[in-house]
Amino acid sequence: MKQKEAIKNYEDYMRISHYYQYVMNEINFEDVTDAPKKNYRERNEIMNYFSYELFKRNTSIDFEKRIEDLNQFYPTLDKKYQRIVDLSLKDFNQNKKIPSELMKEYQKACSEAYHYYILAKEKNDYQIYKPYLKKVLDMNVLFAKYYGKKSGSYYNTFLDLYEEDIQEEELDLFFQSLKERILPLLEKIKASSLTIKDDFLKRPIDKQKQMAMAHYLLKVIGFDEKRGMLKETEHPFTERIGLHDVRITTHIYPQNFISNLYSVIHEGGHGIYEQNIDKKLYNTILFDAASMSIHESQSRFYENIIGRSYSFCKLVYPTLQKLAHPTLQDVTVDQFYQAINKVSPSFIRTEADELTYSLHILIRYEMEKMLIRKELDFEQLPAIWNQKYKEYLGIDVQNDRDGILQDVHWSSGIGYFFSYALGNAYAAQIYHALQEEMDVDQVIQSGNLKPIKDWLKQNIYQYGKLLKPKDLIKKATKESFNPKYYCDYLEEKYTKIYHLK
Amino acid sequence: MKQKEAIKNYEDYMRISHYYQYVMNEINFEDVTDAPKKNYRERNEIMNYFSYELFKRNTSIDFEKRIEDLNQFYPTLDKKYQRIVDLSLKDFNQNKKIPSELMKEYQKACSEAYHYYILAKEKNDYQIYKPYLKKVLDMNVLFAKYYGKKSGSYYNTFLDLYEEDIQEEELDLFFQSLKERILPLLEKIKASSLTIKDDFLKRPIDKQKQMAMAHYLLKVIGFDEKRGMLKETEHPFTERIGLHDVRITTHIYPQNFISNLYSVIHEGGHGIYEQNIDKKLYNTILFDAASMSIHESQSRFYENIIGRSYSFCKLVYPTLQKLAHPTLQDVTVDQFYQAINKVSPSFIRTEADELTYSLHILIRYEMEKMLIRKELDFEQLPAIWNQKYKEYLGIDVQNDRDGILQDVHWSSGIGYFFSYALGNAYAAQIYHALQEEMDVDQVIQSGNLKPIKDWLKQNIYQYGKLLKPKDLIKKATKESFNPKYYCDYLEEKYTKIYHLK
Repeated sequence: MKQKEAIKNYEDYMRISHYYQYVMNEINFEDVTDAPKKNYRERNEIMNYFSYELFKRNTSIDFEKRIEDLNQFYPTLDKKYQRIVDLSLKDFNQNKKIPSELMKEYQKACSEAYHYYILAKEKNDYQIYKPYLKKVLDMNVLFAKYYGKKSGSYYNTFLDLYEEDIQEEELDLFFQSLKERILPLLEKIKASSLTIKDDFLKRPIDKQKQMAMAHYLLKVIGFDEKRGMLKETEHPFTERIGLHDVRITTHIYPQNFISNLYSVIHEGGHGIYEQNIDKKLYNTILFDAASMSIHESQSRFYENIIGRSYSFCKLVYPTLQKLAHPTLQDVTVDQFYQAINKVSPSFIRTEADELTYSLHILIRYEMEKMLIRKELDFEQLPAIWNQKYKEYLGIDVQNDRDGILQDVHWSSGIGYFFSYALGNAYAAQIYHALQEEMDVDQVIQSGNLKPIKDWLKQNIYQYGKLLKPKDLIKKATKESFNPKYYCDYLEEKYTKIYHLK
Repeated sequence: MKQKEAIKNYEDYMRISHYYQYVMNEINFEDVTDAPKKNYRERNEIMNYFSYELFKRNTSIDFEKRIEDLNQFYPTLDKKYQRIVDLSLKDFNQNKKIPSELMKEYQKACSEAYHYYILAKEKNDYQIYKPYLKKVLDMNVLFAKYYGKKSGSYYNTFLDLYEEDIQEEELDLFFQSLKERILPLLEKIKASSLTIKDDFLKRPIDKQKQMAMAHYLLKVIGFDEKRGMLKETEHPFTERIGLHDVRITTHIYPQNFISNLYSVIHEGGHGIYEQNIDKKLYNTILFDAASMSIHESQSRFYENIIGRSYSFCKLVYPTLQKLAHPTLQDVTVDQFYQAINKVSPSFIRTEADELTYSLHILIRYEMEKMLIRKELDFEQLPAIWNQKYKEYLGIDVQNDRDGILQDVHWSSGIGYFFSYALGNAYAAQIYHALQEEMDVDQVIQSGNLKPIKDWLKQNIYQYGKLLKPKDLIKKATKESFNPKYYCDYLEEKYTKIYHLK
């Protein structure tokens, strides 16, 4: 076999696997948007069928052989195909390590946990969820043992699933610096005498107007609706269907238009990333975001660093005012800017302001570490949760629904909450590097944000999974990851807004 | 093997085949509605993949064995499974008769013909289309030879593909009676001194209002939007996706709201049929309309017999007026009723009135017969077409676009145009039988049309393909097909509208 043939064999196989993935994603997308509710059972059946077929393809001897065939040529492969072999072997071997019976048991445990999570949240009672949550987390710990230690610890094995090569010590340092710098900043803001008025953010705006505002914002930031679409769902998300088909969703609350607008910018950020991975990587394992944290860095970059900047408000607010006419006629852009940046510690992560958001993640990170080390009794979970909310955010959680039961994530696994905070920090470091290249505020004020997208495409998007996240950050920002940029950014921004010393 | 096991083996196989069909239909539906245009190539690739996989499944030795296994139990199978065996063997053996190379050549010929059809229509020049059309039709004639004669003729072989067991003599008699009774009726109407005003049908009504009108009509006739949906496409159609997922489409022309409203009732009729086949037939070959003509009878029944009746206009017009406010405020229900039933011979089949519609089909039927018998030179096609339009409709076709090039159908095969006229006639006979059971006008005027749908479900819909079309008509109407009901219906209706003697 020639090298060219081995490459073709791999790509042919991946293309068909991708068709299965396409079908699953499309049916899922329809399921949560506009497919007839009464046909959910059949959609479920079909998704299970294709999901199982895809699993069989991904773990087949045929596939293994194609990867191995490619591996024979490793020394003469270019970097792209070397990386494909590395990641494919890693994935394939990892998949093989878990006995398929155990994997089935795990999937069952997850779907039970999800079911009881919903029920528990409804009844506002963690006890209903507890045994099922425990089962999922125990199995996660077991899986790490099957995978084996990485750099000396099972915890690193876990982390590596979500952020290649990251280690516990780095994350500890990162969260430590957040504690050291965000907590004092939050105290100063609390002590500030400035009162920011934001009641107008709850004024009702109807769906049609909000949708027009959403499409306008997507256009400004550069999400290409000819290669994607925007629809409404219960929870906003981004999903790639095909090469030129990246879909995002939002949720319209008539009395909370800000939730819609910033969900749209957030998902738009994810979407722009997906739309700009180099298409030469399509039908390979590399056609994907570098990691969850890198993905999140792009959504947060657009949502917060660009979207909540004063320049951006100045640019878009007059049009938003027009589209919402007459609801915001009496609100100035300065009032708008202050209101969307108001700091106010709250119970719910997804409703947190930009400053306190990472503190919600800090709490989950600390708890996950203890859970993985089995240092935490499941009975104590709500109490520990509430204690940490008191300690870091200064608020008293009143019930499980606003506390331990607010996030669905743990019902399907543990260990990736850190990505949300790391994404914020990556975003700030990328922003710092971008500032070296251009006057970002000036670019925003010009109304043409393309230079920003182009830079991100050049330095982040195009690579897909070709580079490890660490290497990607280093290449794009010309230095290793450093949480200082995130803390600096927050300090500078909020010192100005709250007139702090 | 036990009988039960043979049944299960068949149904398991069909279920997976159905998943493939589901995927193809869904991707196709998205393609023509709201999927990003720029991803058409990938959608095409994926549809080709699943289409080929499905073809392989439908012609596999595995499938043949499952049908044969079921056939072993034929004497003890109930009617449903006997019919399944009959139809499956028929389909399977028919598929086997065409060499796969020839089938590929045919598919290529069809897609070329389609391409050049579009081009020819654009340029208004039949000559561009001619060689490609000839190729498709020649191959159709060749296929009939592969299939073998039915009841002594190749033409019957053809007809049987679209309407089981129907024979040329029956269709000849049917079209002969249309000629004998519709043509004189049309002459009388042309000679009538009554002028029907219909200019208000061209008043502009915006998309949102037209959509509200469409949803209202679907509700009135009983299309279940919880088990389906309505979207907009270039050409209206109905497509089953899944058991509880039947989708219909319409096209909104701001200056032709009638086109939208009656497309919606038409497709709604198809959709109601699809929504009410007995679900016990799902995942078998019987879960389908009895034939194209029967399908068309249901859309025409709702569109014309119900939808263009005076009772229906009286029922829905006040609400349509409200939804279109203020566009139709000065138009009375009587004016509306007359306008939508105005007879006016025209060039384009899809824009024809209820009376002249079947004459357009008559022309195509006569031409298809000659084509299949190779009695017609392709060079003469436009001239013959125009001559027949002059003879039957009394109008002079001015160009190919309004004549021979108006329908895309022949680019993918020949022989099923008759279904459109036969559907009209079936609808009238069914209507006659329904009248024996209930006072249809009174039911319509009550505003609750459910008794009509229930009767149709009981007598037509539920059976799917369990009965042959002939037997279905006989069972539902208590007599064999008789075109007299259709001619009677038209005579009675138009005699009243045009005050004829």
